[in-house]
Amino acid sequence: MTTITRIDIQDIRFPTSRSLDGSDAMNAAPDYSAAYVILHTDDGSPEGHGLTFTIGRGNEIVVTALHSLAPLIEGRTLASITDNMGTFWREITGDSQLRWIGPDKGAIHLATAAIVNAVWDMWAKREGKPVWKLLVDMTPEQLVRCLDFRFVTDALTPEEAICLLRRQAPGKAAREAEMRSDGYPGYTTSAGWLGYSDEKVRSLAREALAEGWTHFKQKIGGDIEEDARRAALLREEIGWDNVLMMDANQVWEVDETVTKMRRLAEFDPLWIEEPTSPDDILGHAEIRHRVAPIGVATGEHCHNKVMFKQFFQADAIDYCQLDAARLGGLNEVILVTLMAAKFGVPICPHGGGVGLCEYTQHISLFDYIAVSGSLEGRVLEYVDHLHEHFVDPVVIKRGRYQVPEAPGYSIAMHAESQAQHRFPEGAAWQEEH
Amino acid sequence: MTTITRIDIQDIRFPTSRSLDGSDAMNAAPDYSAAYVILHTDDGSPEGHGLTFTIGRGNEIVVTALHSLAPLIEGRTLASITDNMGTFWREITGDSQLRWIGPDKGAIHLATAAIVNAVWDMWAKREGKPVWKLLVDMTPEQLVRCLDFRFVTDALTPEEAICLLRRQAPGKAAREAEMRSDGYPGYTTSAGWLGYSDEKVRSLAREALAEGWTHFKQKIGGDIEEDARRAALLREEIGWDNVLMMDANQVWEVDETVTKMRRLAEFDPLWIEEPTSPDDILGHAEIRHRVAPIGVATGEHCHNKVMFKQFFQADAIDYCQLDAARLGGLNEVILVTLMAAKFGVPICPHGGGVGLCEYTQHISLFDYIAVSGSLEGRVLEYVDHLHEHFVDPVVIKRGRYQVPEAPGYSIAMHAESQAQHRFPEGAAWQEEH
Repeated sequence: MTTITRIDIQDIRFPTSRSLDGSDAMNAAPDYSAAYVILHTDDGSPEGHGLTFTIGRGNEIVVTALHSLAPLIEGRTLASITDNMGTFWREITGDSQLRWIGPDKGAIHLATAAIVNAVWDMWAKREGKPVWKLLVDMTPEQLVRCLDFRFVTDALTPEEAICLLRRQAPGKAAREAEMRSDGYPGYTTSAGWLGYSDEKVRSLAREALAEGWTHFKQKIGGDIEEDARRAALLREEIGWDNVLMMDANQVWEVDETVTKMRRLAEFDPLWIEEPTSPDDILGHAEIRHRVAPIGVATGEHCHNKVMFKQFFQADAIDYCQLDAARLGGLNEVILVTLMAAKFGVPICPHGGGVGLCEYTQHISLFDYIAVSGSLEGRVLEYVDHLHEHFVDPVVIKRGRYQVPEAPGYSIAMHAESQAQHRFPEGAAWQEEH
Repeated sequence: MTTITRIDIQDIRFPTSRSLDGSDAMNAAPDYSAAYVILHTDDGSPEGHGLTFTIGRGNEIVVTALHSLAPLIEGRTLASITDNMGTFWREITGDSQLRWIGPDKGAIHLATAAIVNAVWDMWAKREGKPVWKLLVDMTPEQLVRCLDFRFVTDALTPEEAICLLRRQAPGKAAREAEMRSDGYPGYTTSAGWLGYSDEKVRSLAREALAEGWTHFKQKIGGDIEEDARRAALLREEIGWDNVLMMDANQVWEVDETVTKMRRLAEFDPLWIEEPTSPDDILGHAEIRHRVAPIGVATGEHCHNKVMFKQFFQADAIDYCQLDAARLGGLNEVILVTLMAAKFGVPICPHGGGVGLCEYTQHISLFDYIAVSGSLEGRVLEYVDHLHEHFVDPVVIKRGRYQVPEAPGYSIAMHAESQAQHRFPEGAAWQEEH
């Protein structure tokens, strides 16, 4: 009977703002950061690691939230959680006092994600499987038992979810084999950051082409003619057979988006990502209607299943960019993935951060093998930052994610990386002064 | 040139869970709490006080967020803020790193409210006016300059806001005089808490009737027959000429709400409040369509202007229950009030908490005198808890809020109350052990 005896909570930050990695129109100078937890047990069974992603200041608020949530998990047996993961999720998001400062949003929900994902990491390690494999090996009934359908039954019931999963059961083994042989298709954001010089963008685009990438994302949302100039430059490098996406990181109004995207349409973008407020479901629906055939993508700031439910119900998006740690951990991610499949919206999870690609490979594999059975419209974001700090980092070949085989959720950081980037005392931060 | 030199931040909690004051279907045992700030100046001019409301655990997370926001205000002159309050609001909600853990929601936004409201308190004291009077004395142009229209221009432009305000200018003086003589109509929630015994409910209802209240709110959302029984009991006490509202505190699904409200329709409720997830705009629209003529009310958990914009655009609510500290302070409240007026939705601000009634009287007075010019469908929630801790508490006569005349936002707590309820070291919490 394994008991979770202690949760170790750390504030880990990488000084990425020094090189403008990750810079965009809204986020000028992020320091990619993680509120990081390790669940310890009493019987020497594997630890569970989990993190949530922030971009620097504010990480301390999520760390405080982790300390507030800790009593809800310390002292529990792993079995008491995994026997009914859906109930556990309701409990950890349902503390009647803590819930007030969300509910299911902001710091408390980001913290929830780190803990919930750490439980999945521990469970998968205990089962000797990577998380995606733990999920695809479950029966539909077992999977649905992991979910809390509160507030979404008007869009998806447990019974419908079981039907959906059953429908894909026959092809699962073949798709798993296909993934092991071919990998999952990705796209790269690494060339397109707003703060990079033209020369850096060109050379990164060439490198990426040489590595086999076919999908490229450009950050836009500054001066529109500057955006157009940079788009032309990228089209020069990647040609017209490759795919270009654009990401405005929330800087526009609804009408403004339509005007701006008409200006940029000549560069044939696949999608406009985060054109406006991430909370604006009706605004995205309006934009989608007016900028077609350019697709609309959003989701990295979409905070819970109730918001995604409405994005689907309102036909507001063409691509669902759920975030593995903005949603309240894997349980809520699975539920959103199921709703996306029901509404026919492809999931293209958000990858721009530290550890997010490590998480999302499991989600997209699960989606393809067990939920949607389709790769159509699906590409998984890849950002080439900070992977060296992970024990089992993502592996990319010719623009495709290779299937992770190590047990767990691939999110454990090297102890040395943790120590060096602990904020503010780690060596990486001492150099500043 | 007054400079804000220092922000004093406190974790203040009242052990209300001991008496089940404030108990409802979602919030079983709240300890009404405040993340409380005092802005100090360098020249002996008045301090600014502000708070945000939580229900206990989690208050420490908001306190951490206040410390994270403090550098954005410390060292600024009051004039640099009040000269362009709209720009200030954009700045304090727009720190590119802190914004990530919202944006404009959760702990960081609750903390923003405390600071922003403290600035208004300071400004109003400096002008020697209560906040409502500071607002109604502004020209439309001055008021609009306090607002940040980002993400809402598809619903309301600055120009439209100015027109709206101008239209109400002629009757302002008469309405101000009317308010000073008659007060603003309120309703009471104090009789209807879920955790109270039948006897306590009956005796509180009788007392409230004797005091002149005409509108009563009942907490529901437990067992439906128990809700019906309690509604019958309340109708016995208050009769059918008085008004009964019902509040489910988010515990139902969309379809379930329709079924349950059909069962409770015989008690003729004016509205069903928070039937389901506070994020579910489309769900509320569906409910509203199906439970009419019972009205739909929500807003105390509605976290920002973008969400309210959509509640209005989707015709999802009959009553806008904005919260003075869930929204990012008075600037965002004013913007929501203007949008509500444009869409013809009455505002009935949320009052169940500590300090919220002190805030909301200013908001409803401003709405009536300067924005909507109407009392139709408008009642301001009153909860009879914890007012004794405030220096200028609300004054109620015959069920009506009396106009506050003291300069500021009425939110300063007695120093002794602060000291006694500081968590965990205050005397109120030492008794527990």
